[in-house]
Amino acid sequence: MQQGSDSAGAAGRIYTAALVIIGNEVLSGRTQDANTAYLATRLNDLGIRLIEVRIVRDEFDAIAKAVNELRAACDYVFTTGGIGPTHDDITAEAIARAFGRRLLEHPEAIARLARHYAHSEFTPARRRMANVPDGGTLIDNPVSAAPGFRVENVFVFAGVPKIMQGMFESIRHELIGGAPLLARTIRTNLAEGRIAEPLGGLQDDFPDLEIGSYPHFNKQGLSVRLVLRGTDPVRLGAAVDRLRDIIVALGGSAEDVDISAS
Amino acid sequence: MQQGSDSAGAAGRIYTAALVIIGNEVLSGRTQDANTAYLATRLNDLGIRLIEVRIVRDEFDAIAKAVNELRAACDYVFTTGGIGPTHDDITAEAIARAFGRRLLEHPEAIARLARHYAHSEFTPARRRMANVPDGGTLIDNPVSAAPGFRVENVFVFAGVPKIMQGMFESIRHELIGGAPLLARTIRTNLAEGRIAEPLGGLQDDFPDLEIGSYPHFNKQGLSVRLVLRGTDPVRLGAAVDRLRDIIVALGGSAEDVDISAS
Repeated sequence: MQQGSDSAGAAGRIYTAALVIIGNEVLSGRTQDANTAYLATRLNDLGIRLIEVRIVRDEFDAIAKAVNELRAACDYVFTTGGIGPTHDDITAEAIARAFGRRLLEHPEAIARLARHYAHSEFTPARRRMANVPDGGTLIDNPVSAAPGFRVENVFVFAGVPKIMQGMFESIRHELIGGAPLLARTIRTNLAEGRIAEPLGGLQDDFPDLEIGSYPHFNKQGLSVRLVLRGTDPVRLGAAVDRLRDIIVALGGSAEDVDISAS
Repeated sequence: MQQGSDSAGAAGRIYTAALVIIGNEVLSGRTQDANTAYLATRLNDLGIRLIEVRIVRDEFDAIAKAVNELRAACDYVFTTGGIGPTHDDITAEAIARAFGRRLLEHPEAIARLARHYAHSEFTPARRRMANVPDGGTLIDNPVSAAPGFRVENVFVFAGVPKIMQGMFESIRHELIGGAPLLARTIRTNLAEGRIAEPLGGLQDDFPDLEIGSYPHFNKQGLSVRLVLRGTDPVRLGAAVDRLRDIIVALGGSAEDVDISAS
């Protein structure tokens, strides 16, 4: 949001990010996206909140529209997928169009690829992987040489999770964040409908925290996880204590599931 | 796209859908979305293509913006999540705002909920689950009574996969689609950079098919899946035969991974 608002309280402004997953393969239901969970967790460690994910088709307009909307709305945008050597890899060209820049062969990318394919064939298709929008900087690929790239606040990664993760680690020092969101999770056997009213009251009393209620099925039937998130561990602890009291007063069980980041 | 274009050839117009996943829990990386793959596969069986997915925060503006953009761009929009009884369940109100309609207690929804909670407590929080935008029709919930609803081309489902799937099955007869996309997958040991050029040529010769190349890591290292999709099984078969010839001429292996829908 590029916002100066101070909803994180003493922690300062909130840094935001969005992810654009470029992939007909995910939209067809054949491939399960694994990058969202990784990126969300790692960003949170840096004090950056993932506020939107879009999965779009391998089409110039779809990619450019998503990237342009989100780079105006967030501090950082990450894309995954579509930077390989085949005809369906159109991300670099789409990002160039989004920024209204030319797509150029990046000399350092050419050098890296030529080295990587020294004992194989440096085909024209592989050479395409050196194309970067004018002014873009390279992102190291510790796995298979073909680099990603950064243009302003947009970071372009590969879609293969192992490569995507290596690329993220190689740029994480470029990211500026705020206070990480801490989380506490309480599992209860109370139905949501029974705890909803006091839980809403708790949210009103702790507007600096984000309180979520998530029902899910397990062998015993429906159970509920109550997740409290915030940047201040003292406030978080106070809210958890209040929540335990609420649950016990209603005759329910309150189990601390984890104490962890995100 | 509400498009009259005939890119499916003899199969007629292409029907499209989008999914809006309402969930801080998915954006935090704690919960892995399971609804995209289910919906994509089931929609494809009906000849409807999932062309975009957005994961947005539990915020009125974020939900309304995504729904309004996508309902104008697609034949169908589905939402998952945020229709329970707790304070963070704001989907019904957000959809009402998106359509500029009032949120009303739906009499039939009240009746269903009252029946379901006859031997428990029909709390005010549970009663909230009967709120539906003016003019909305109910979607059956075969699991836990609290209904989803439909407003024009927008279908509002629960986020819990088991309930979401039950709701989808109860409305699938309301969906009109075209010809299902059929898929063939060939796995090869050839690197993408070696097959890229003839593969691009194959795509040029079969503009009615969608040809994708997906590298992934397994125990043997990087392997490549080539996926061909189209509505005409004869054209698909012809392209697969050509692809086998291309791979064999390059000295690679071509393994038929599956013959299935989507």
